[in-house]
Amino acid sequence: MISMAFLSDLFSVLGTVAFALSAVLAARGRQVDLFTILVLATVTAVGGGTIRDTLLDVPIFWAEDTSYLWIAAVSALLGFCFYSLLDRHGINLLYQAVDSVAIALFGVLGTTKAWELGFGLPLGPVILGVITATGGGVIRDTLLQRPSMLLGKELYIVPVALGCTLHATVLALAPDHAQLGALLAIALVLVLRYLSVMRHWVVPQWAVLKMK
Amino acid sequence: MISMAFLSDLFSVLGTVAFALSAVLAARGRQVDLFTILVLATVTAVGGGTIRDTLLDVPIFWAEDTSYLWIAAVSALLGFCFYSLLDRHGINLLYQAVDSVAIALFGVLGTTKAWELGFGLPLGPVILGVITATGGGVIRDTLLQRPSMLLGKELYIVPVALGCTLHATVLALAPDHAQLGALLAIALVLVLRYLSVMRHWVVPQWAVLKMK
Amino acid sequence: MISMAFLSDLFSVLGTVAFALSAVLAARGRQVDLFTILVLATVTAVGGGTIRDTLLDVPIFWAEDTSYLWIAAVSALLGFCFYSLLDRHGINLLYQAVDSVAIALFGVLGTTKAWELGFGLPLGPVILGVITATGGGVIRDTLLQRPSMLLGKELYIVPVALGCTLHATVLALAPDHAQLGALLAIALVLVLRYLSVMRHWVVPQWAVLKMK
Repeated sequence: MISMAFLSDLFSVLGTVAFALSAVLAARGRQVDLFTILVLATVTAVGGGTIRDTLLDVPIFWAEDTSYLWIAAVSALLGFCFYSLLDRHGINLLYQAVDSVAIALFGVLGTTKAWELGFGLPLGPVILGVITATGGGVIRDTLLQRPSMLLGKELYIVPVALGCTLHATVLALAPDHAQLGALLAIALVLVLRYLSVMRHWVVPQWAVLKMK
Repeated sequence: MISMAFLSDLFSVLGTVAFALSAVLAARGRQVDLFTILVLATVTAVGGGTIRDTLLDVPIFWAEDTSYLWIAAVSALLGFCFYSLLDRHGINLLYQAVDSVAIALFGVLGTTKAWELGFGLPLGPVILGVITATGGGVIRDTLLQRPSMLLGKELYIVPVALGCTLHATVLALAPDHAQLGALLAIALVLVLRYLSVMRHWVVPQWAVLKMK
Repeated sequence: MISMAFLSDLFSVLGTVAFALSAVLAARGRQVDLFTILVLATVTAVGGGTIRDTLLDVPIFWAEDTSYLWIAAVSALLGFCFYSLLDRHGINLLYQAVDSVAIALFGVLGTTKAWELGFGLPLGPVILGVITATGGGVIRDTLLQRPSMLLGKELYIVPVALGCTLHATVLALAPDHAQLGALLAIALVLVLRYLSVMRHWVVPQWAVLKMK
């Protein structure tokens, strides 16, 4: 049977690659150079986990294992080289897909790590999951002076928060099925992101702020 | 006699409610939804204290006691529901009032916590007080891509800094009167904010940067 | 012979003065007041080192020795008083020069501190050097809602990264010559910044992102 530790490492590597590529794609339409992209890719890939580890007061994961930095750099370099193969429409959809995979994986990873350390149970792990998933992207968007995805009309924060809540619920009520819970949580994030990007699902009207 | 610990808890709860409501009001004129507001309210309410606890290298306060997260969420939810009762003029003044109470309370709380831990006395507690009071709002404004209150024409940072300095001075010279000092510091912040918002007090001319 | 500790202290003080002055100069063309400038100067001068110390999980340097805060405040005050002596063209060049000195010194300091603590060798110290050098400026630019220097067309991140890499290489291969390595790294950053600002060196064409 696949161990949780192996799954966790696999998710970390895949999420790092996805976030680094998302940073290359986020720079579309801008005059940016390779070095800027390397900075953005690294910030996006490790930013959320860095905030998480700081709040948990544990050693920063990329100092413990610098391979995450290399994975982010090489992914960004490859993304840079093959960037010109993409056209404008394809690039937008690819960006959404790659970013969605990254936030799903990092959300589950952040929730797991905080849960294992007993950080502010039961709500703390959900919040750290959301921070791990979105923190790097928020820093990237702030540096690029782009509006944060957090505040867009698309469903972005909602899928991540629901996925992390599902995973935390399984960890609380049925810890023996943590692996299954993690996979279901990732699937939930991806499905909701798909519905938002492809089917244009938005937040229901009753939940939108209105003033008389 | 009312203990300092009780006052401190009371101030924390009131400040959390005030900051969560300020986040709802800060979203005026924007197409935001309930989920975005919950994120903004939480960030505003706990952001400054989170930076403070990270710099002090103590456990994050909302992980030690997750009730702050619930208080922020419920306050934001209630603020969302009753938002439509307000008109545009009233909402602006209410925002200023609620935010002023929050920064006054959090400034004093941050100064107190840093002082008790002997963090960079005597200047350190003043700076951590200002960070506790304004950090959440700065993150909120950055996410909303609004100009930071820190840089506006109104007196904002000056009242907080003076209040924290007054409180730190009392803690240094007359620690037996810490409670009185805290109340005076809060009053000082509120009076200066009132003079700025209602009487349009601004920074004196000699203190404005000019170039020949 | 001059000790590394003395050099390190000297660099810290000079870098703090330079960053505080750079914050005054960064405010050119804006209606800012003295108090805002004090905040910006402090944030710029100690921001990068604060992030570094948080990631290294060591006490924040300005809480250990509050003189850095006073140096930043007095430098900003003097810069404010003498600001009107400068004209617009001179101010821009002076800003670039002062800022370049600051990022060179802080980059080397950050790399040294992270290396001595064995933080994620060998790549970790380079990244912490870059963060120490640029973190304060990034926070300053975010507060001012200015585009970050990190993403400009000028060579900014590249000189710092190369300087920190050179210093880390000397620390790894010839630790006996750490002082010389530090001076060479500072010289490298300054020369590259000079070539960028005065000779308009930019990133080579092959390194600029293009889409078909």
